Amino acid sequence: MIFIQKEIKLKSRSKGIYLITSEILSEIPEIKDIRSGLVNIFLKHTSASLSLNENASADVRTDMENFLDKLVPNENYFLHNYEGKDDMPAHIKTSLLGNSLTIPVTDGKLNIGTWQGIYLCEHRIHPHRRDVVVTIIGTD
Amino acid sequence: MIFIQKEIKLKSRSKGIYLITSEILSEIPEIKDIRSGLVNIFLKHTSASLSLNENASADVRTDMENFLDKLVPNENYFLHNYEGKDDMPAHIKTSLLGNSLTIPVTDGKLNIGTWQGIYLCEHRIHPHRRDVVVTIIGTD
Amino acid sequence: MIFIQKEIKLKSRSKGIYLITSEILSEIPEIKDIRSGLVNIFLKHTSASLSLNENASADVRTDMENFLDKLVPNENYFLHNYEGKDDMPAHIKTSLLGNSLTIPVTDGKLNIGTWQGIYLCEHRIHPHRRDVVVTIIGTD
Repeated sequence: MIFIQKEIKLKSRSKGIYLITSEILSEIPEIKDIRSGLVNIFLKHTSASLSLNENASADVRTDMENFLDKLVPNENYFLHNYEGKDDMPAHIKTSLLGNSLTIPVTDGKLNIGTWQGIYLCEHRIHPHRRDVVVTIIGTD
Repeated sequence: MIFIQKEIKLKSRSKGIYLITSEILSEIPEIKDIRSGLVNIFLKHTSASLSLNENASADVRTDMENFLDKLVPNENYFLHNYEGKDDMPAHIKTSLLGNSLTIPVTDGKLNIGTWQGIYLCEHRIHPHRRDVVVTIIGTD
Repeated sequence: MIFIQKEIKLKSRSKGIYLITSEILSEIPEIKDIRSGLVNIFLKHTSASLSLNENASADVRTDMENFLDKLVPNENYFLHNYEGKDDMPAHIKTSLLGNSLTIPVTDGKLNIGTWQGIYLCEHRIHPHRRDVVVTIIGTD
């Protein structure tokens, strides 16, 4: 049984939805030695999310962000607005999308679908640098 | 430590919410030998979801589907509509519900609540056959 | 490899969002011996959720609950209302937020962000006592 855990600092990004599959994979070359396993990718924040979705069309990421903004608008009715109008909406979007992914690894690669990619959803307007803990467990 | 991983092809289904606990369990008879463990069930798609919810009343599945359709209507305002009006709404519903479950296994069975069942939420109108990776880790 | 699994009964709570990090940790003193691992926290119910979110401001929990109530109102249009008007909305909120968390453990502690805490989101009006399965896997 192989067990690997490491912390990664993602690039700083302002509000938006970003495909980060390559950025994550470049930090965990060890998965090439895993024949069969799982990788958990955990974001240590409450104002950004991880999600798996379509990896080809940038329009999907734009539509997703617009939908979330419409669903959770930066209105004035929130009690919690210490860091601005985007503060509480960012927390809500985080709980709706989640901040952790558990993905199978097979023959040294993420065993995801052809169209699946890892999204970082940055919900705050101003750029933030986000920390991720990656944990890999599996057999060689 | 026991480690098992396999890919399953689910039955083809058109839009709707389906209880697939039995279909999944019939493909992993190996869990009867796991005394204590975890099973990860991972859907390799961006237009369908997995969720755990009420396993007795078909009305819950109907209400859930109607709610999701009302929350993410097949409107014209999406940029991404390459495969039709249900294309982008399917991606959004997938990110809201998620496409992966991690469930405890105890004494050879899924250790879920009395009322919990595994839902496949097919968000596309036309039938699709969906692939799932099941990974089991535990002790005997 | 260390593998621990146990069931926990949470305190009875009526509708609301509660920070339960300490209540969970008090039941799993074993994690202090895990150098590197994962903990899965699984709620065995379909009318309550687990989520990770902001651990300092009670306003966040109030805003989150109010948002969810607005998103999924206790209307009359649901077919499934056997246990009251809050029955079906509770199921929908459960699928939107999820009922399971997988969190890294490092050097004997949950490796979560400074502002992250474990939320129990009780969606039913009347108090319920909720069961959780905690599974820990890791190295010493």
